[in-house]
Amino acid sequence: MLIHNDTIVALATANGVGAIAVIRISGPEAIAIASTVFKGKNLIDVPTHTVHFGLIHRNGEPIDEVVATIFKSPKSYTGDDIVEISCHGSSFIVKKIMQLLIAGGARYARAGEFTLRAFLNGKIDLAQAEAVADMIAVDSEASHIAAIAQMRGGFSQDIINLRQELLNFASLIELELDFSEEDVEFADRKKLTDLVTSIKRSVDALIKSFDLGNVIKNGVPTVIVGKPNAGKSTLLNALLKEDKAMVSEIAGTTRDFIEDEISIEGVNFRFVDTAGLRETIDKLEHMGIERTRQKMKQASLIIYLFDVNTTSENELIEAIDEIKLLSIPYLIVGNKIDTTSKKIHAFRNFDGIIYISAAHNAGLEALRTKLLEAINYASFKTGNTIVTNMRHFESLSNTTTSLHKVLLAIEQKTASDFLAQDIRQALYFLGEITGEITNDDLLGNIFSKFCIGK
Amino acid sequence: MLIHNDTIVALATANGVGAIAVIRISGPEAIAIASTVFKGKNLIDVPTHTVHFGLIHRNGEPIDEVVATIFKSPKSYTGDDIVEISCHGSSFIVKKIMQLLIAGGARYARAGEFTLRAFLNGKIDLAQAEAVADMIAVDSEASHIAAIAQMRGGFSQDIINLRQELLNFASLIELELDFSEEDVEFADRKKLTDLVTSIKRSVDALIKSFDLGNVIKNGVPTVIVGKPNAGKSTLLNALLKEDKAMVSEIAGTTRDFIEDEISIEGVNFRFVDTAGLRETIDKLEHMGIERTRQKMKQASLIIYLFDVNTTSENELIEAIDEIKLLSIPYLIVGNKIDTTSKKIHAFRNFDGIIYISAAHNAGLEALRTKLLEAINYASFKTGNTIVTNMRHFESLSNTTTSLHKVLLAIEQKTASDFLAQDIRQALYFLGEITGEITNDDLLGNIFSKFCIGK
Repeated sequence: MLIHNDTIVALATANGVGAIAVIRISGPEAIAIASTVFKGKNLIDVPTHTVHFGLIHRNGEPIDEVVATIFKSPKSYTGDDIVEISCHGSSFIVKKIMQLLIAGGARYARAGEFTLRAFLNGKIDLAQAEAVADMIAVDSEASHIAAIAQMRGGFSQDIINLRQELLNFASLIELELDFSEEDVEFADRKKLTDLVTSIKRSVDALIKSFDLGNVIKNGVPTVIVGKPNAGKSTLLNALLKEDKAMVSEIAGTTRDFIEDEISIEGVNFRFVDTAGLRETIDKLEHMGIERTRQKMKQASLIIYLFDVNTTSENELIEAIDEIKLLSIPYLIVGNKIDTTSKKIHAFRNFDGIIYISAAHNAGLEALRTKLLEAINYASFKTGNTIVTNMRHFESLSNTTTSLHKVLLAIEQKTASDFLAQDIRQALYFLGEITGEITNDDLLGNIFSKFCIGK
Repeated sequence: MLIHNDTIVALATANGVGAIAVIRISGPEAIAIASTVFKGKNLIDVPTHTVHFGLIHRNGEPIDEVVATIFKSPKSYTGDDIVEISCHGSSFIVKKIMQLLIAGGARYARAGEFTLRAFLNGKIDLAQAEAVADMIAVDSEASHIAAIAQMRGGFSQDIINLRQELLNFASLIELELDFSEEDVEFADRKKLTDLVTSIKRSVDALIKSFDLGNVIKNGVPTVIVGKPNAGKSTLLNALLKEDKAMVSEIAGTTRDFIEDEISIEGVNFRFVDTAGLRETIDKLEHMGIERTRQKMKQASLIIYLFDVNTTSENELIEAIDEIKLLSIPYLIVGNKIDTTSKKIHAFRNFDGIIYISAAHNAGLEALRTKLLEAINYASFKTGNTIVTNMRHFESLSNTTTSLHKVLLAIEQKTASDFLAQDIRQALYFLGEITGEITNDDLLGNIFSKFCIGK
């Protein structure tokens, strides 16, 4: 995996027919190989960051008129020499040009290999590299904000700062090891406890942010439940309709439209498995609670919808008691307020019922606000760093476990060498995130999930 | 349609997820608009054909890290200023950047509008513009060779030369008109007849080439017919298998594989409607000839396959007589030569029977050669200009009709003014091809078939 002194080539743009396609070549021989098939200016002589019109040919036989862009090491995406060939957007032509470049000495790039080289050449750290894949996959405002912040190094800086604090602490402990026979304590145990506690608090906050980060990245699986005729379909359609009106599609960039998904301030709420799931709550008496819980695990958020005209306080108490057993955040929504003669204050046992009329688009704005509150969206809006990556979440979880051991060790006055080992563990797990600590398996695992050409 | 002093923007690469996507902006305000959303070097000050890393932002809020390429008028694809923004290949990000550029004063480009501008700015002629669309659509070696020759102006030059000859002639006739009262003849009628005859011969050759050009561009619809057990499926599978072995697919550029299509020296032979059509010949007695002909029109080439062991000379004569009625080129192929004890020379009434053993891959090379001969492929290989575009075919057909009238007029010693009118017609039709003669409808018709972004 780590061999990276050869020259790689891949299609960098999406597959399919387009006006143009871009073929990217990176490596020590990139410019030399490109120049053997390019008729125009001699690419070897041109300055970096310049663009040249010319002809790709095979022994003089024309293949395509193209534009070649030269990036010279180290001022390139990968840090190596790069040539980007912008040709006509036909798969047939792309294939022919790639075959020529392969014949000239390049090899097909593996998934993520350009970004891997950028990491290995020190252009970006590992969390930034992972954000590149996130950027390509973003499909909502919120996931976009999280990805670009991470790509630009915001998250990495937080981790590096935490790690630096821990390193300072570690160096004092290591010093004690050097003088272990003399039984000295260079590091004040009280101060150390405060420091590790503070670091652990920051790590725990990052871990906690993953719940939100995960829904930001992947959307919030949401389910609307309620009795027949509560107005579930009407509500869903009203939400979808307003969302569609907000989203104007652009010719040429149509994104695959996922049915039953709405975007609220850039967070995607996906309404899942409506067929089987919506009626589940009503049928609790017919099913084992355990089986229902299993089904409900598909949702991260439940909207319980009821008709204010036909529902009694007791019925509502019963339904909500059942939902509470599921341990999933929920909202209680009273529908059809337009037709009620009944005072909605009747449901006095519940705080925070959202009253709407799905049929008349009333109260939907309040519902949307509550949906965002339910996923703790405010912490994202205030600019806190949010963990969106499962691998980072795992490394942080391992870090906090190690820090917990460190605190215990201090408390129990464990010998410095055990203490040092726990600290080294914590440093290791934090270092995994930005790639200061790494290995081939880890890299292989991360970059194999990239698309080819990135 | 012809308003082209504003600034247009479109996604230039294929839709879908890729490592990068390229957004193209063209027009007098291209650089100014791009610079309002680009943080990095001031794009207004940079030289043409240079590339600049920077940040696309909306009022300071980061959208993406991109590379911007500057092409300054007239040294660009369209002839206007162009900025190409290479961003991360997410539809979501592409859409956001496009919306920013639209807000900055650009408008969404229509299909083919960049190439239309290249034509209107005199960067390319109309036949070259059409070849750009052909280039994007090429899916075979032969269509590629035809498209790039046309894009590079080879075909246009032929037309321009013919038109120039005709113009020289026309100017003499027009001179006669100026002196019409004096009844002089500046143009020697014998020489003129020779000249027009020669031009007409060239035009007719181009018209004739369209049969080949059409199959080069669209493939050759081919049908294999014959009695049950003649070995039709075995032959088709043998041809497909050899072709697949020759075509190695490249990761990332997989082209949609069309079933039952083989490529011979870059020409695609498509085996059509095998279910309904292959048996047709055998069932001629059960169907009206006219209906069969109608069905057979789907094919440009027929392979009649027979088992040399079980077919008598008379049966073969009868089958071929029926095929001849269809007026479609055909090949007669005798199969199963490996199992024959019968002398294949038995079929002495036929020249050019191709003897094969589909089951043993024997004789397939000869069959492939004959397939190419059947579509008159040799004229393409010798580098003759081939007409591949239906519009050009129609203009050339109109031209030859006008030239025919000119010849008649000379022969019948018609007055110069009628002669002049027929020549002007011929000049008009030839001029349509390269766009020297044009109008909005024609341009609208041509460019609306392009993809957006080209």
